[in-house]
Amino acid sequence: MADTMSDAHRKVIGAASYSADVSIPGLTHARVLLSSFAAAAIGSIDTTEAESAPGVLGVFTAANLPTAGQPARDRNSAILATDRVVWQGQPVAAVVAASEAAAADAVRKIRVEYTPSDPVTNISTAAEPGSKLVWPLPVERGEGASAEVHAGGAASSHTEDVSRGNISATEHFTRGSIDEGLGEADKVVTLTLRTEAVHQAYLEPHSVIAVVDPVDGTLTLYTATQSLFGTRNGVSRLLGVPREKVRIVPVAMGGGFGARYGIFEPLAGALAMATNRPVRLAVTRIEDFASTTPAPATEFRVTAGGTYDGRLTALQAEILAESGAFAAGLAGLIGNLFASVYRSPHIDVVSHEVLTNKSMVGAYRAPGAPQAAFALESLMDELARALGADQLRFRLDNACQTGDPMGNGDPWPHMGLSKVIERAMNHPLWKARTETAAGRGLGVAVGGWPGGTAPAAAVCRADSDGMFYLHVGSIDITGTNVALRRIAAEQLGIDESTIRVINGDSSTAPQSGPAGGSMVTYTVGAAVREAAVGARQQILEIAAKLLEASVDDLEISQGVVHVKGSPGSEIPVTKITSQGARLGGRFAPITAHGRSAITDQSPGFTVQLVEVDVDTETGVYEVVRNVVIQDVGHAISPSLVAGQMHGGAAQGIGWATQEQLAFDESGTMTTGTFSEYLIPDATQVPAIEAIMVDNPSPHGPMGARGVAEAPIVAGPAAVANAVRDAVGARITELPITSERVWAAVQRE
Amino acid sequence: MADTMSDAHRKVIGAASYSADVSIPGLTHARVLLSSFAAAAIGSIDTTEAESAPGVLGVFTAANLPTAGQPARDRNSAILATDRVVWQGQPVAAVVAASEAAAADAVRKIRVEYTPSDPVTNISTAAEPGSKLVWPLPVERGEGASAEVHAGGAASSHTEDVSRGNISATEHFTRGSIDEGLGEADKVVTLTLRTEAVHQAYLEPHSVIAVVDPVDGTLTLYTATQSLFGTRNGVSRLLGVPREKVRIVPVAMGGGFGARYGIFEPLAGALAMATNRPVRLAVTRIEDFASTTPAPATEFRVTAGGTYDGRLTALQAEILAESGAFAAGLAGLIGNLFASVYRSPHIDVVSHEVLTNKSMVGAYRAPGAPQAAFALESLMDELARALGADQLRFRLDNACQTGDPMGNGDPWPHMGLSKVIERAMNHPLWKARTETAAGRGLGVAVGGWPGGTAPAAAVCRADSDGMFYLHVGSIDITGTNVALRRIAAEQLGIDESTIRVINGDSSTAPQSGPAGGSMVTYTVGAAVREAAVGARQQILEIAAKLLEASVDDLEISQGVVHVKGSPGSEIPVTKITSQGARLGGRFAPITAHGRSAITDQSPGFTVQLVEVDVDTETGVYEVVRNVVIQDVGHAISPSLVAGQMHGGAAQGIGWATQEQLAFDESGTMTTGTFSEYLIPDATQVPAIEAIMVDNPSPHGPMGARGVAEAPIVAGPAAVANAVRDAVGARITELPITSERVWAAVQRE
Repeated sequence: MADTMSDAHRKVIGAASYSADVSIPGLTHARVLLSSFAAAAIGSIDTTEAESAPGVLGVFTAANLPTAGQPARDRNSAILATDRVVWQGQPVAAVVAASEAAAADAVRKIRVEYTPSDPVTNISTAAEPGSKLVWPLPVERGEGASAEVHAGGAASSHTEDVSRGNISATEHFTRGSIDEGLGEADKVVTLTLRTEAVHQAYLEPHSVIAVVDPVDGTLTLYTATQSLFGTRNGVSRLLGVPREKVRIVPVAMGGGFGARYGIFEPLAGALAMATNRPVRLAVTRIEDFASTTPAPATEFRVTAGGTYDGRLTALQAEILAESGAFAAGLAGLIGNLFASVYRSPHIDVVSHEVLTNKSMVGAYRAPGAPQAAFALESLMDELARALGADQLRFRLDNACQTGDPMGNGDPWPHMGLSKVIERAMNHPLWKARTETAAGRGLGVAVGGWPGGTAPAAAVCRADSDGMFYLHVGSIDITGTNVALRRIAAEQLGIDESTIRVINGDSSTAPQSGPAGGSMVTYTVGAAVREAAVGARQQILEIAAKLLEASVDDLEISQGVVHVKGSPGSEIPVTKITSQGARLGGRFAPITAHGRSAITDQSPGFTVQLVEVDVDTETGVYEVVRNVVIQDVGHAISPSLVAGQMHGGAAQGIGWATQEQLAFDESGTMTTGTFSEYLIPDATQVPAIEAIMVDNPSPHGPMGARGVAEAPIVAGPAAVANAVRDAVGARITELPITSERVWAAVQRE
Repeated sequence: MADTMSDAHRKVIGAASYSADVSIPGLTHARVLLSSFAAAAIGSIDTTEAESAPGVLGVFTAANLPTAGQPARDRNSAILATDRVVWQGQPVAAVVAASEAAAADAVRKIRVEYTPSDPVTNISTAAEPGSKLVWPLPVERGEGASAEVHAGGAASSHTEDVSRGNISATEHFTRGSIDEGLGEADKVVTLTLRTEAVHQAYLEPHSVIAVVDPVDGTLTLYTATQSLFGTRNGVSRLLGVPREKVRIVPVAMGGGFGARYGIFEPLAGALAMATNRPVRLAVTRIEDFASTTPAPATEFRVTAGGTYDGRLTALQAEILAESGAFAAGLAGLIGNLFASVYRSPHIDVVSHEVLTNKSMVGAYRAPGAPQAAFALESLMDELARALGADQLRFRLDNACQTGDPMGNGDPWPHMGLSKVIERAMNHPLWKARTETAAGRGLGVAVGGWPGGTAPAAAVCRADSDGMFYLHVGSIDITGTNVALRRIAAEQLGIDESTIRVINGDSSTAPQSGPAGGSMVTYTVGAAVREAAVGARQQILEIAAKLLEASVDDLEISQGVVHVKGSPGSEIPVTKITSQGARLGGRFAPITAHGRSAITDQSPGFTVQLVEVDVDTETGVYEVVRNVVIQDVGHAISPSLVAGQMHGGAAQGIGWATQEQLAFDESGTMTTGTFSEYLIPDATQVPAIEAIMVDNPSPHGPMGARGVAEAPIVAGPAAVANAVRDAVGARITELPITSERVWAAVQRE
C-alpha cells in the first residue's frame, strides 16, 4: 500500500504495524532454544517431554527441520545447530505451539546433552598460531557478506589460508615502501588501540511471521528487513524454495542500522513449512542480543610517520577484526577504510578477520568505519601533536582528493574531504580552540563512507484523479520516501503532496538494492528520477495534442501544463491523467519506468568537533558540544539529512562513551538487556550542530549523496581526541569510560 | 500476488479463494433487509428491537448510514432506500452483527411501515402515455452506465424528455427514407417479438468484505469485480472518500458475465466505516436474484423489405427495452446493434428505455445483442423465406463491410461478417440442409459485437532468477492471463512458463479498462506487448555489451540471446536478468512500461448453425447440433477462445430454450432460486462445434480481437429459426418453451 502517512508519523502516534503486530488467522507461535554454551559438542537432543507438552504442535532440531543442506559452517545455512554449538546463543531447537507461553514452556523441556569445551573469546589470543580452533576446518565466506552489502566491492578481494587457524581472511594493502616512508619521517608515532563489540540496539527485537499458501506453497514472510530481495534470495537458497515462491512483505521497522538483512526469516519459514501453519517467531530482548550480528571488536597496532613540513610519509597497520563464529567479510573493508583517507606515499596495512566463539558480526551503520576512524584519527592526532602541527591543517594538507588512490588502489570518486575540513577550520569553536578552559578539551576527527551502489528500477504511474505513485523495491527506514517524492515532484512540476510511494513486496516491487550502505536516495532516487522524467514526457505529449502546441513549448508548474509565453493556454495535469481512464479514450495512462545502474560511488565525509568537560579527579566527563560537518551532496530534504546527522552523531557518542557487548570467560554475554547494555539517553547527548556542506554528486539525483552512514564515523575518535586535549592522556580503548580516563590521568 | 497457478486450476481443485472466503480477524457480518414491495412509500422504520438483539453491532437505514448524498434516483447513489422503494428486493436496511445468524435474526426484527401502490411491471403499458410513473420526475442516466462500459460509446447520445413518463431515454437511428425503402421492396415482413429478462446466473452470489484501516482510514474492499478502477471510483464518489483511500482487492470470481461492476461494494464499505469494523456482506441466492442487474426484457416491432434480386431495402424497428427502476443506458445500444449488421439504404430504428418497478438491468455478455439479434435474425429469416432466397446468400449479399455505416452513422472498423457467412456456407451441415429429416430443423443466425476499448498500461519486469512478471490492472475472469503471457513470450523469446501475471489491486495496478466488453486481450494485451518489446530491447542492450556485439545482430530464442550467424556466441536471458540484482552492478534491472490507447474497435462476428429435433405432438424439442463460426482475429490461445465459444453458445441455448426472470402482478420475482430459474445442464447442451476464422485485427496484439461476447449473440435467433425450419411456425418470444412451440404448431 502507498504511504498515505509517513513512516515517522505512524511511529510517533503509535500506529506503526510491526511484524509482531500482523494479525493472521490461525497464527501459531514459535520459541527457540538457544545454546547455553559458547563451544560444545552436541551429543543428543531429547524432545520427548517437549513434544507432549500442552499446546505443542511440533518440536524441531536440525534432524527434522528441512533445509537445503549447505555446510553448517556458513551462518547462512545454520538454521539450527547440528553436531556442535559455536556460540552461546546459537539456535539449537525450536518449538511451535498454540500460544507463545506454551512454546516457551515446552522449550524448557528440551534436554540437550552438551560436551562443553573452552571457548575462543579473545581475538589477540585467537589469532595466535596454535590457538584452539573455533572450527577444525577453514571457513568459507558466506554469500552476501556484510562488506559487500555495504561497500559495493571495496573489500571484494580476500585470501583464504587453511593453515592460519582462526584467521578466516586476510587483506593486505600496500603502496611504496613502508620502511622508506618511516625513514623519511621526522616523527614516527605508534599506538595500539582496541574497540569492543557494539550492538545496533534497535528498539524492536527481531520478529517474523511466516505463512505458507495452502494451495501453491508460496512462503510469505512478514518481516522488517532492510533487503527485500536479499532476504528473499537467502530464504530461497536455504530452504530450497524457488525465489518466485518466497514473498517478503516489508512491515514497519523499529530500527535497522544494518542489523536487518535476514536472521530469523529462514527459521520462521522452515517452521511454517514443517508445521503447515502460520508461525510467529518473535525473540525476546535477551535472545536478540545473544543471537544477532553486532559490530565487530577490533585491535589495531598502527604507526605513522610525518615531516615537520606537514607531510604524512608512512601509514602502517596490523588489524584484527573479530568475526564471531562465522566469516563475515568485514576485515578487508576496515583495512581499506583505514588506508584510504589520507595521501601517504607509503602504506602497509594488513587486516585479519579472526573467528571466535561469539555470534557472527554484521553491519552496523558504516560497518567498520567507526573502528577504523578511531584508530586512524587517534594516530593522526598524536602525529600532529608530535610534529607540532595544527590538527586540521595537517589533515587538510594530506587529505585525499578525487582521483587519489584508496588503500585498495581504486581511485576515489568525486569526494569532498577537503571541503569539510576547510569548513571546520572556519567554525567558531575551532577558531577559539586556544581559549579552552581547564578540564575542557576540544577534539577533531575525520570520518567518511565510500557509499554503496546497486542497480534499481522504479515505476511512476498516475491515477485518474491526478495522484502519482512511485513503485520502488526499497524500504523506507529513514524517511527516504520523502526524498523520492521530492525528486519526482521536481521533474513532474507537481506538489509532492500528490505523490505517494509504494514500497512493494519482493514479489511485486521493482528490483532495488537494500536499504543500507546509504544508497536508497542515491540509486533508487536515480531510477525514480528517470521514471518521473518519462512520465513528464508522456504528460507533455498528451498536453501538446490537447493544447495544439509543440511539446517543446510546454512546461509544467504547480500542477498545470502551460504553453510558454501564452498566458491562459494551459491545462491542469489532472485533466491529462484522467484521460487514461476513459472508456474508448484516445490517450494512454501515464505510466513510465525508470532504471539506474550507477557504478560510481559518491563518498560522504564528515569532520566532527567535540568538546568535553572532564573531572580529572574522577575521570567523569561530559560531551558538551558536538559539531557535525558533512558534505551531503545536495540535501534533497534538509530536515531528514539533519535527522541522519543527529542520529549518527548520537550513536557515535554511545560508541565513544559507554556501549560495549561484554562476555565472561565462558563466552557468555553479560550485557544482554538494556539494563547492562547502556545506550546514551537524552541527557548524555548534547545539542548536535549539524552543518551541511553542499558538494553535489555528479551522479546522484539532484546531486544527492548517501548521508546516513558518515555521521557516526568520526564521533568516537573525536571524543578520544577531545579527552586527550583535556587531560593530556590518550585513551586507546573504546568505550572511553570514566574509569579509563581516570586511569589514564593517573598514568600521565 | 502472481498467478503461480491458473485461475481455472485453482477453481477445479477447489482452491480458489472467493471474497466470502477471505479470512479477516475480527470480522463481523452484515445482512440486508430487502424491500417486500415493488412500489411503496416508506413511512417509518423501527429498528429498536433489532438494535437490542443479541450480537448486534449496528442497525442502519438511509437515516444513519453516511453517503455523499446524491439523488436517490440514481442507482449508483441508492445505498439504502430513503422515502420509497421502487422494486421488490431494494435494500432498505442493514444489520451488522457478530455472526451471520445474529444479523439475520435482527433483520427480521426491523419493522418498516410501507404504503404500497400498484407497481409498473410491463414495458408495453409502462411506455404508454399517462401510465403510472415509476418516478414522479424524469430520471438521469447514472455515470458509467452499462452501454458505455461495454460498447465504448456506441450509444453515447441519448435524449431526455421530461414529459415522456416512464421512458427514460430514446435513441433514434435513421438513414434514407423508410417509406421509400419499403416502397422499393418486393416483399415486406413485419414481426413483433419479445424477450424476457434473463439473469447472468453466476454460481457465486455477490459478496464483499470491507475493512477500514484504523490509522489512515483507507477502505479496502475484497471483492470479485470486473472493474477495479470503476468500482473503486464508484465507491469513492458515493461514500465521499478520495480515490486513493479506497482500495479494491480482486479475489477469485465465481462467474462474471457483466454482472460484477460494483453492486454491494458501497453498502459494505459504508457499513465498515459506520461500525469501524471489518464487515462481510454476502447475500443469499434469492437476495442475489432479487437485487442485482439482469439483462433487460425487450419488445420489438420490426419490419423489413427486400427485393427478389436479394437486396434489403428497408429496416424499421420500434424497440422497448426494460430498464428496471433506474436508467441503465442500454436501449440505444440495442437499437444500434439492430441497425448495424446489414446494409440497408433506408433505416428507421427507434429505441426506448422504459422504467419499471424492477431491479435495474445491467450488462450480460454482449449486452443487448442477443435480443437485437433475435429480432433482426428472425426478421431476416422470414424475409428470405418470403423472397425465396437462400438464408446465407441473402445475408452475405447484404452484410455490412468494413467502412460501411453502422446504425449510428459511424463507419464499421475492420470486420469480418462476410468471412464467417462464407465459412458457414461451406459447412457440411449447411450444404446438407435440404436433407433434413421430419421434425428436424436447421436454423442459421448472425451475431456480432463491436468490441470495447479503453486505455491500458502494463509493466514487464524481470526478477534476478529470470522469471518475468507482467503487472496489469485487468482481472483474469476468462483466462486472459494466458493470452497476456503468450503475447509477452512471443516478444521476449522465452518460454511462457517463466512468465507470471500480477493482477494488482486498485492501489497498485497499472490503469486498465474493465474485464468486460471483450477488451482485455485487445487493450491490456497491447500494453503488455509494448512492455515486452521494451524489456526485450533492454535485454538486448545488455547482451550487446556482454557479447561485444551490436543490438541489431542479436536475437532471442528459447531463453537465449544469440548473435545471429555466430553459433556459440550467446548468453542465457537469466544471466542478463541476474545482472540487475548485483551490488555495485553496472546493468539496470529489466523493467519496462507499455501503454495502449487503441480507439479503433475490432468487431467480432459469428454465424451459428443450429439443428433441432422437435416432437410436434408435444412441442418438446432438443438442440442437437450447434456450430459456432467466429472471426476471432487471431486466436492467441485457441483452447481459451474455444472455451469462450462453448460457454457463450451454451448460455445462448439457455436464453433460447428456458431462461427467464418471472414476476407476478405485484412485481414479486417468482424465479428467485435455481429451482425456478433454470439454466441448461449438460444434457441440454449438445457438443458445440467451434470454428475459428482467422481474420487478424490490424490493431490488436498478434491480430487478436475480443472473442468473449460474440458467441452468445446469435444462439437464440438460430434456435428460433431452426424451430421455424422444423415446424413451419415462428416463435416470437424468448424463451422458446415447449408450450410456445406446441401452441405455434397448433396455430399453423
